[in-house]
Amino acid sequence: MGNNKALMAIGAHLSPHDHSKHQLATQSVPYDEKKLHAEVWSELVVELPADEIWAVYSSHDLPRLIVELLPQRFDKIDIVEGDGGVGTIMYCVLNPANSGPQTWKEKIIKMDDKTRTKVVRQIEGGYLGIGFHMYEHIFTITPKDANSCIIRMTASFDVDDNSASNASLISANWSMGKAIANYVFQNKANKHNNAHGN
Amino acid sequence: MGNNKALMAIGAHLSPHDHSKHQLATQSVPYDEKKLHAEVWSELVVELPADEIWAVYSSHDLPRLIVELLPQRFDKIDIVEGDGGVGTIMYCVLNPANSGPQTWKEKIIKMDDKTRTKVVRQIEGGYLGIGFHMYEHIFTITPKDANSCIIRMTASFDVDDNSASNASLISANWSMGKAIANYVFQNKANKHNNAHGN
Repeated sequence: MGNNKALMAIGAHLSPHDHSKHQLATQSVPYDEKKLHAEVWSELVVELPADEIWAVYSSHDLPRLIVELLPQRFDKIDIVEGDGGVGTIMYCVLNPANSGPQTWKEKIIKMDDKTRTKVVRQIEGGYLGIGFHMYEHIFTITPKDANSCIIRMTASFDVDDNSASNASLISANWSMGKAIANYVFQNKANKHNNAHGN
Repeated sequence: MGNNKALMAIGAHLSPHDHSKHQLATQSVPYDEKKLHAEVWSELVVELPADEIWAVYSSHDLPRLIVELLPQRFDKIDIVEGDGGVGTIMYCVLNPANSGPQTWKEKIIKMDDKTRTKVVRQIEGGYLGIGFHMYEHIFTITPKDANSCIIRMTASFDVDDNSASNASLISANWSMGKAIANYVFQNKANKHNNAHGN
């Protein structure tokens, strides 16, 4: 049941002349305890064109709309600086029913219409207050065909080893993607019905 | 504060002649509720050569070793079929202190020495018993330079929309990577000390 061949092979690699021995001797663990990196992403394949979905994600009005679409998630999002485009700083307050940090400031650091990519990074409070060195959301909309696309939301972060257990607060979540897809879908259905006098 | 340009642009896309209208009319949401896909991965940069780390991950003896290294995680891992290589089926029982599914059968479906990639998929029980259609772990060891590498563990899964909240059980975790890195590191230190008569 199993064999030790591979484990014994490790020994063969380890000679007393190994170049890393001095470096290893000065540290107690063989990794950087200040920078555990992780990503959590969730994907939603939607039967709607990429450009229609991206129009919402890139909209300068999204902070207002998203509070309206996800009241169970957000109590409010105030724009502190900017017009909703790159460089905009927002102050977010979650509905108290949510777990994890409840308030933070975040900044839109990228908005690329070509790759349909938006990056929003926390700059004060939030996960930065509980042992994280970096926390950002990356949104990408990728066309599948003319009438369907993939919405991907990624939480990307670095956490201190001492606070690694706080990573359990971050898990895959499709609610924003679903809310925006349903919003575009409903607008489309209403428009279709109006055009046909229903 | 913000503008509606992009949101109004959505309207411009929506003509009553849109090709997807008939398809949309037959469904209540614009996405497949049976297949919400996500990945959760965690990375650890370690000051040890990729081959030494991969030797442990690819070892046919890993099921026994990992229970020894992570007793707070695993109560036992029994080999049901196979020798520890590709095709091996294991029965895993977690320590009851862990959240989420406690028992499952999993199968090693890939072990590639060239790309240093191992894939283990749950085939019975586990997440498959709580609304997931697929759940697997992907381990990759990527060299950084001759004496350092990146250990990445990915949980990749598809979950039914009705069970999407169970995704909160899955979060970034560095404990296996740290345990294996420390194991290789200690073996190396012991060998070095023995060679110098300490």
